[in-house]
Amino acid sequence: MAEAQPLPISGARMTVTYRLQGSERDAWIGARAIAREQTVEFPEHLIPTEAIRDQVMGRVEDLSPLGADTWAATLTFADETTGGELPQLLNVLFGNISLWPGVRLERLQLSGAMLSRFAGPRFGRSGLRRLLGVENRALLCTALKPMGLSARELAHLAYQFAAGGIDLIKDDHGLANQPFAAWQDRVEACAAAVQRANEQTGGHARYLASVTAPADQVAERAHAARRLGAGGLLIIPGLVGWDTMRSLADDESLALPIMSHPAWLGSLVANPGHGIAHGVLFGQLMRLAGADAVIYPNYGGRFSFSPDECRDIVRGTERAMGLLKAAFPTPGGGMTLDRVPEMVAAYGPEVILLIGGGLFAEGPDLQAASRRFLELLDRRAAP
Amino acid sequence: MAEAQPLPISGARMTVTYRLQGSERDAWIGARAIAREQTVEFPEHLIPTEAIRDQVMGRVEDLSPLGADTWAATLTFADETTGGELPQLLNVLFGNISLWPGVRLERLQLSGAMLSRFAGPRFGRSGLRRLLGVENRALLCTALKPMGLSARELAHLAYQFAAGGIDLIKDDHGLANQPFAAWQDRVEACAAAVQRANEQTGGHARYLASVTAPADQVAERAHAARRLGAGGLLIIPGLVGWDTMRSLADDESLALPIMSHPAWLGSLVANPGHGIAHGVLFGQLMRLAGADAVIYPNYGGRFSFSPDECRDIVRGTERAMGLLKAAFPTPGGGMTLDRVPEMVAAYGPEVILLIGGGLFAEGPDLQAASRRFLELLDRRAAP
Repeated sequence: MAEAQPLPISGARMTVTYRLQGSERDAWIGARAIAREQTVEFPEHLIPTEAIRDQVMGRVEDLSPLGADTWAATLTFADETTGGELPQLLNVLFGNISLWPGVRLERLQLSGAMLSRFAGPRFGRSGLRRLLGVENRALLCTALKPMGLSARELAHLAYQFAAGGIDLIKDDHGLANQPFAAWQDRVEACAAAVQRANEQTGGHARYLASVTAPADQVAERAHAARRLGAGGLLIIPGLVGWDTMRSLADDESLALPIMSHPAWLGSLVANPGHGIAHGVLFGQLMRLAGADAVIYPNYGGRFSFSPDECRDIVRGTERAMGLLKAAFPTPGGGMTLDRVPEMVAAYGPEVILLIGGGLFAEGPDLQAASRRFLELLDRRAAP
Repeated sequence: MAEAQPLPISGARMTVTYRLQGSERDAWIGARAIAREQTVEFPEHLIPTEAIRDQVMGRVEDLSPLGADTWAATLTFADETTGGELPQLLNVLFGNISLWPGVRLERLQLSGAMLSRFAGPRFGRSGLRRLLGVENRALLCTALKPMGLSARELAHLAYQFAAGGIDLIKDDHGLANQPFAAWQDRVEACAAAVQRANEQTGGHARYLASVTAPADQVAERAHAARRLGAGGLLIIPGLVGWDTMRSLADDESLALPIMSHPAWLGSLVANPGHGIAHGVLFGQLMRLAGADAVIYPNYGGRFSFSPDECRDIVRGTERAMGLLKAAFPTPGGGMTLDRVPEMVAAYGPEVILLIGGGLFAEGPDLQAASRRFLELLDRRAAP
């Protein structure tokens, strides 16, 4: 069974740091177990060739203490273990070990060769600013809700938001193809409403249509959304698959900005000793999978992210990753207008502020509420 | 904005029980928050119509104590909130609340109307038995590994396993399209090797090709696998999307049995107070998404599932769900031949026993190791 020819291995490797619990000995054993589990998934002494053991199996490069019984294990994996495909890349990073309670992926550095295989966000921060005609301030986003409204009613909301100055008006992430407002009716009506508002105001608001859909309809709905005049897409990669989002971002004939939603992925960050660091998951991996803007729950809302975790996401959306563009952090989840000054102070202008239900709380005149949202920003904008 | 016509609501609802922590008051507040968060995602006092509040928003039906500061909150959701689509169904069940640390989905009962929208496993237990010509005993499964072997070498392994009597020979879940054994070369060689063994033994072993692939290639590879002679598919729904697996199961022109792999989904079960119960996730939801066989880590292996959790999975694979067929539980993950008698005693014959690396530990003659695996079962089989 021993292999005569050398393995087709380039030498390019990705560097991944996992946080492990236990004694130093436990941590070494755990790190070696990760190196095996994520690649050869095979008892080490039975690996048939030295080349596979040395080059295909992951390598433990370093183990450093982080605190009492907490360790940072840095491993590298040959790029070839992923076959250059996103699902298998995610599988190497955290596939089987998602089933191990005490392992958390903390840091990720992909090789230049690997990064060059992914186009990342098509627009990124600067591209989205160009589309929206907004240079210096934070961008504004809201959501069409609640589920149960008709397509006509949702479109009326969309009109008011766009007329009031909201930049990005997205479907609520739970709007799919319900009988209350069937997908095509809704997208057609909302896209038309936003266009009408733009014609009246001279603005560039965009309606983002949700394309979280059955597997065989995602691309179809995305193209239909474009034909119907939508200005972007909202998608839940945790539910439709990360590479499904990537395939939409890479689709030249679509060329729409993409906003990702974190639903279903929360378990990866719900437990501090397990999962994937916020900045890797909602920053780096979302960018790798083509998100131009990444929704996540801001600190102090209906969810439990801390300010530090939110900062980690921001860093992940903008840290150097080859030629990949920076994505917009899009904090939301229970935000209200009175939080805006603090959010602008915390995030600066390179952010999309997502206020959904909180805008409705301002009273029945949503156009006025939208204007107040924008004015709060203008007062804070950098000159 | 108040709606004149009644909402298009059938009255069919799904019943979902969540486990919550805290005082009784906390639990009531949490249950109501789930009812809102998973549907209207909107402040309750601002919901524009009574019909939306009463019929579209989830309902808290019951709150019962499970122990000190632990509660079972039973909610119902109108079928229409899902639009009858699997991604949005999963979104209603656990989308945003995946971001809440202390919530665990414990029980799921779908309406008959909802169940009738899903075909579930195409073959199920009895169909897979028919394909394999095995009536009374547990089925045997192994994996082609380690990554790094060439297509020819993996095919040689596949031949030995099939000749030795293994029923299902699957790609290791990390075999994608690596340069060591490119996807098409591997699938062609392994399918041919298993067919050759079948011709010699008169057996019906099947090779399951991995189709965890970029979004735009999953269906293409699945159909190519069929043309190349593969007898089934292995897929990771956590990575490619649950509905991607469903679309393969429903594809009449494919009609291949599907085995699901749990990679990436472990975070949903890694924390006892959070996530989704094992039986719901690896039993009911995998069946709904079309898996004929569901791999999960058996107790006492490299992973941390308990015997109770494994029993819960078995129940989930077979409990009544409309006309959906029962799926095969497929425990694996560090199993060895010496565990077989105990596994047969614990699971009975309605199981697929997956032993990967453990078979290789039996020595270089894999055909003999496979025969021993089968003999261990024959000795235990029901008459």
